[in-house]
Amino acid sequence: MTVTVNDIDALRARFVRLDTPAVSDALDSLGIPGVLAGIQARVPGLITAGPAYTVQYRPFERLGGTFHGAGNYIDDVPPGNVVLIDNEGSTTCTNWGGLLTVMAGLQGIVGTVIHGSARDLAEVRHLNYPLFSRAVTMVSAKNRAKVTGLQVPLEIEGVRVAPGDWVMADDNGALAIPAASVIEVLERAEAIDRTESDIRDAIKGGMPLVDARKQFGYSEPWKPRNA
Amino acid sequence: MTVTVNDIDALRARFVRLDTPAVSDALDSLGIPGVLAGIQARVPGLITAGPAYTVQYRPFERLGGTFHGAGNYIDDVPPGNVVLIDNEGSTTCTNWGGLLTVMAGLQGIVGTVIHGSARDLAEVRHLNYPLFSRAVTMVSAKNRAKVTGLQVPLEIEGVRVAPGDWVMADDNGALAIPAASVIEVLERAEAIDRTESDIRDAIKGGMPLVDARKQFGYSEPWKPRNA
Amino acid sequence: MTVTVNDIDALRARFVRLDTPAVSDALDSLGIPGVLAGIQARVPGLITAGPAYTVQYRPFERLGGTFHGAGNYIDDVPPGNVVLIDNEGSTTCTNWGGLLTVMAGLQGIVGTVIHGSARDLAEVRHLNYPLFSRAVTMVSAKNRAKVTGLQVPLEIEGVRVAPGDWVMADDNGALAIPAASVIEVLERAEAIDRTESDIRDAIKGGMPLVDARKQFGYSEPWKPRNA
Repeated sequence: MTVTVNDIDALRARFVRLDTPAVSDALDSLGIPGVLAGIQARVPGLITAGPAYTVQYRPFERLGGTFHGAGNYIDDVPPGNVVLIDNEGSTTCTNWGGLLTVMAGLQGIVGTVIHGSARDLAEVRHLNYPLFSRAVTMVSAKNRAKVTGLQVPLEIEGVRVAPGDWVMADDNGALAIPAASVIEVLERAEAIDRTESDIRDAIKGGMPLVDARKQFGYSEPWKPRNA
Repeated sequence: MTVTVNDIDALRARFVRLDTPAVSDALDSLGIPGVLAGIQARVPGLITAGPAYTVQYRPFERLGGTFHGAGNYIDDVPPGNVVLIDNEGSTTCTNWGGLLTVMAGLQGIVGTVIHGSARDLAEVRHLNYPLFSRAVTMVSAKNRAKVTGLQVPLEIEGVRVAPGDWVMADDNGALAIPAASVIEVLERAEAIDRTESDIRDAIKGGMPLVDARKQFGYSEPWKPRNA
Repeated sequence: MTVTVNDIDALRARFVRLDTPAVSDALDSLGIPGVLAGIQARVPGLITAGPAYTVQYRPFERLGGTFHGAGNYIDDVPPGNVVLIDNEGSTTCTNWGGLLTVMAGLQGIVGTVIHGSARDLAEVRHLNYPLFSRAVTMVSAKNRAKVTGLQVPLEIEGVRVAPGDWVMADDNGALAIPAASVIEVLERAEAIDRTESDIRDAIKGGMPLVDARKQFGYSEPWKPRNA
């Protein structure tokens, strides 16, 4: 399946009407592990979803006094993608900051998810950019970590993410969706969202939660119901 | 002592005029351990206090492909109570979300404190509901943890909390107050609050802090002073 | 070198126009370790910088039922200083709260950085005071930790900080700058900030990031460039 930019935009529009809990429940219903544990929103209230452009960093021993480039991959990230960075969960140096955020905005990159740390939080918030990371510090990656792979498969907290797999993140955290399952997961998540909405309406109308859950099929909320 | 709902409302009104630091100092003055360590506010600026309705979760091995109910206890929680959930501090699955928050609001439940995780943070913030938890993730408890006890004694970070003990939480964290000591702790906390107010006024008037503390009895701030 | 209060104010005005990432990069360029790891902003959006007034706390065994004073040093902190507290990263009791924040404001103290915990967060936020700490709890230090040194050298996460060394903190975290290097670090950080601004302008004008970094000397961003 070749997915065009238009397809990506249409899929993303559907994902961001949902939230990560609905998508996580859809993954659960299919037995697919997806949670990128420990990664938190750095600009509260934002949501992102899109194919992952993967970036692998690894620590390196200092090689003399010279600086080594970092982040030069950014010009190559396609619009509509989410940058997914694996720096082994580092809390001691950063893999994202203000300049990369400006570039990301200019290129139509829709978010960044880091198994590691970020800096320049004030600028990122000012630009209202969807940034998610394990931690925050102000220390540069220069002479501390370098890019060892672009568009390679990553493994984050036990979850494998290949380039083009989807990544989604919001205030509840971040998760990955295998490319081959994106449509099925999305459709199940939409059904789960409808089920939850129906239950919400019912309990607001006075129905006990236990009854509402039974009536609207909460035990298998991804299943289509008759109207 | 039988405490009525009116009593609870009157006590809560007095507690929420204070804060957890004053109540913690009152507990300290009586030698009562109470801090529920590591639990943080998820909607900044809110405060809650009330008798605990206790819920115990424990992890379970997956039992086939079926979903197991969770959260059906909510219809039974009395108004004015705080739901206190012990899931052994889990950061890997959640024990609270949007639907339970809607139910809680409808039933007059005044807050939720979780030794574990919550999800649906955007909805919880929108509803301005006092939610406190160890962590946030988006993963359902379905097939991961189940309710193993309702209104049973819990032990959270070394502090025992029985049903009906009071729980209080604000931006500084969460603590528990044994039911038998609620009035005494409250009265001491109110005296501590008055002492701190007097010191605050004095230092704003130019008195050195060391003198203000001496004058207003900061070493035993829970003691009534002559006007 | 004797630094007067006027000097301090002038230096601080220059530091707070920058941010901790620029200063961290300047420290890196000089091979000076400075990050005070794990310390976070408690009032988002604020920045502070100034000479450290150092306070060392250590835990102590309970000595009978009497309270021991804490925080009485505050009257002695010079205006323009940052209070830097080392309580070995404690997450179980606090070394800062509302009264100290009021005092700090009255005395012209410009911020507090704690390798340990703080409380009274609502009041601190209301006063818009630059507070940075490892953790938050509501438990008093009384009978749990006492001041064991004032204006003594501290070691925080492997970084030595002497009284009068500068401390700077913002949403990215906290760092220390040796007194002897303050001017050199500041000048390098200002050059780094200019380099980053030039790159930002260039990429907003359409230049690829890799080219902008090359043109503006990003590998040695602290070096003065010809206009």
